[in-house]
Amino acid sequence: MNALGRHVLCEVNGCKGEMLDDIKDVERVMVTAALTAGAEIREVAFHKFSPQGVSGVVVISESHLAIHTWPELGYAAVDVFTCGDTVDPWVAVDYITKAFEATDVTASEVQRGINLGQDSESQQDDEEKKAS
Amino acid sequence: MNALGRHVLCEVNGCKGEMLDDIKDVERVMVTAALTAGAEIREVAFHKFSPQGVSGVVVISESHLAIHTWPELGYAAVDVFTCGDTVDPWVAVDYITKAFEATDVTASEVQRGINLGQDSESQQDDEEKKAS
Repeated sequence: MNALGRHVLCEVNGCKGEMLDDIKDVERVMVTAALTAGAEIREVAFHKFSPQGVSGVVVISESHLAIHTWPELGYAAVDVFTCGDTVDPWVAVDYITKAFEATDVTASEVQRGINLGQDSESQQDDEEKKAS
Repeated sequence: MNALGRHVLCEVNGCKGEMLDDIKDVERVMVTAALTAGAEIREVAFHKFSPQGVSGVVVISESHLAIHTWPELGYAAVDVFTCGDTVDPWVAVDYITKAFEATDVTASEVQRGINLGQDSESQQDDEEKKAS
């Protein structure tokens, strides 16, 4: 694979449910995470669900940060995709998990890019990271 | 893992570069993909880069569809995340790859959800799919 970017998928558990249900809090955390990682923000789109939950995305020059929250479970599904070498997706992930005071986090990094004819297994360079 | 959703990461190669550089075309394809899969659209945010490339996200009730294009390489990085059982992310992925007339596609499905204390490797249930 000709790698163009890194995509971190993160299961964020044990969060403060109240924060996860506040669209302003969730948007603030995601925007600040992008800026903390040095990304350039292009678009911001968040939605509050009834009776609970928030979904939203920050589109950055380097790709995107996305979040979907289940406040009733203290859980958020986060993914951070960055292309190029200037922004480290793990900096954003670390900011987000700390901001929500997560007690258990599992994340994996997937290399994204152009197929060069290798088999599909060799194209996925996962890096597992678990903190509890 | 207590699965809440399915996240398909898709490397879309051999696309028509002209379509990938047209923000209206890219947004139309992603919105139609969401609707074709039966998703409920909540927010739409797309951005055109200079000199080339489009990034955008469709936030749906069931999570999101995202795309980042490299027209000069005929390549798009697509991901489709759906929670619940009503929307099949592969329906959206299939629509997108056909719409861009991709000649080579590699995609993998990652299960998303709450940690239940298993080790991290067992929490990722990838399904590899390659079509060329």
